[in-house]
Amino acid sequence: MSNPKAVVLVSGGLDSTTVLAMAQQQKFDCYTLSFDYGQRHRAELMAAENTSKTMGAVEHKVVKLDLGTIGGSALTDESIDVPEEETEGIPITYVPARNTVFLAIALGWAEVLGAQRIFVGVNAVDYSGYPDCRPEFIRAFEVMANLATRSGVEGQTLSIDAPLIDMTKAEIVQAGVALGVDYSLTVSCYQADEQGRACGKCDSCRLRRQGFVEAQLPDPTRYV
Amino acid sequence: MSNPKAVVLVSGGLDSTTVLAMAQQQKFDCYTLSFDYGQRHRAELMAAENTSKTMGAVEHKVVKLDLGTIGGSALTDESIDVPEEETEGIPITYVPARNTVFLAIALGWAEVLGAQRIFVGVNAVDYSGYPDCRPEFIRAFEVMANLATRSGVEGQTLSIDAPLIDMTKAEIVQAGVALGVDYSLTVSCYQADEQGRACGKCDSCRLRRQGFVEAQLPDPTRYV
Repeated sequence: MSNPKAVVLVSGGLDSTTVLAMAQQQKFDCYTLSFDYGQRHRAELMAAENTSKTMGAVEHKVVKLDLGTIGGSALTDESIDVPEEETEGIPITYVPARNTVFLAIALGWAEVLGAQRIFVGVNAVDYSGYPDCRPEFIRAFEVMANLATRSGVEGQTLSIDAPLIDMTKAEIVQAGVALGVDYSLTVSCYQADEQGRACGKCDSCRLRRQGFVEAQLPDPTRYV
Repeated sequence: MSNPKAVVLVSGGLDSTTVLAMAQQQKFDCYTLSFDYGQRHRAELMAAENTSKTMGAVEHKVVKLDLGTIGGSALTDESIDVPEEETEGIPITYVPARNTVFLAIALGWAEVLGAQRIFVGVNAVDYSGYPDCRPEFIRAFEVMANLATRSGVEGQTLSIDAPLIDMTKAEIVQAGVALGVDYSLTVSCYQADEQGRACGKCDSCRLRRQGFVEAQLPDPTRYV
């Protein structure tokens, strides 16, 4: 009998790569999905492709999606600078409704594939400022998803698995290392260079570096 | 005082153009949103631009989104024919999770604009085979949307308005004509030619023609 299928959202970063390792360990046939959405850190897409291949995903797709058209975030709007210091409230790197959009497209692919599981690396601990990283958002999306699709109508259940949601960055790093993830292949930096080397200064770099420190594990990140 | 803002999903077709007229009548400043998603009927996008301008929308945006990448529908997959006869169950022209994806992007733009209303032309009567045209889907999306966004966190409420959901095509046509909609500018056909002329044979053409017949109103549609 073949393995059940899962769609795994992968950005090429630390979190989603860890989630891919978890989904593989649970014996899902993994179909990885990334977005070319006008983000500044395009080195991520290369990392997503690399890690998907290396870790044995069945297929990796990149959907082009011009989120820059609607603007509103430092990650897609060139007129807004990426901050290099911690800020209060919802960060300017928040892309409006990004996780909703990404999960919606994953839902479409899951329906085409007949997959009943979507894995996503959202995290409520380190990204507490992002509304669409909260557990109540994930549950509401799941309810909506089962009403939105053919599989919902036909009585199958689709579930959204966000295994990192309550984990600290250190716990995520520890889990990934235990599963054999090679984090030197991943890119988390909001402004990585073309070779995927990290700035070491942005929010995402700071959280990642701190994760390795707290996990008491060597940090394999390539910095500029 | 300025009018409240609304994002209105417009396809250039009969339904969404009627919804735009309704939103304008309710004195919203309308921001219209269309998708270039690999659909075959690109004449729709021209119609969406035309009707948005003619009817006084503040701004019309087209977001590029390559839904063809995930396949699964006659509307985006060139290897699947558009049927010219009525079919049982969920039609092959159903694009997996399309309304979820479109509403998710509308949600992102609404957040950027500070709009608390999204208008969408889904209809449960004529499109009963599409799971994401049901009222329970719209309500579940609304709940999710308020958890997904900054405005939800800040205690504002976003609502999704689907004014056509329980209307027959004849009722929609009558409402639109009463509001002065020029339906000759709209394109509903799944395989319209480059000039926006309709085939008269596909599901969408049949429903539209029947609507004018039942409404006892002249059909201004341009057929090939």
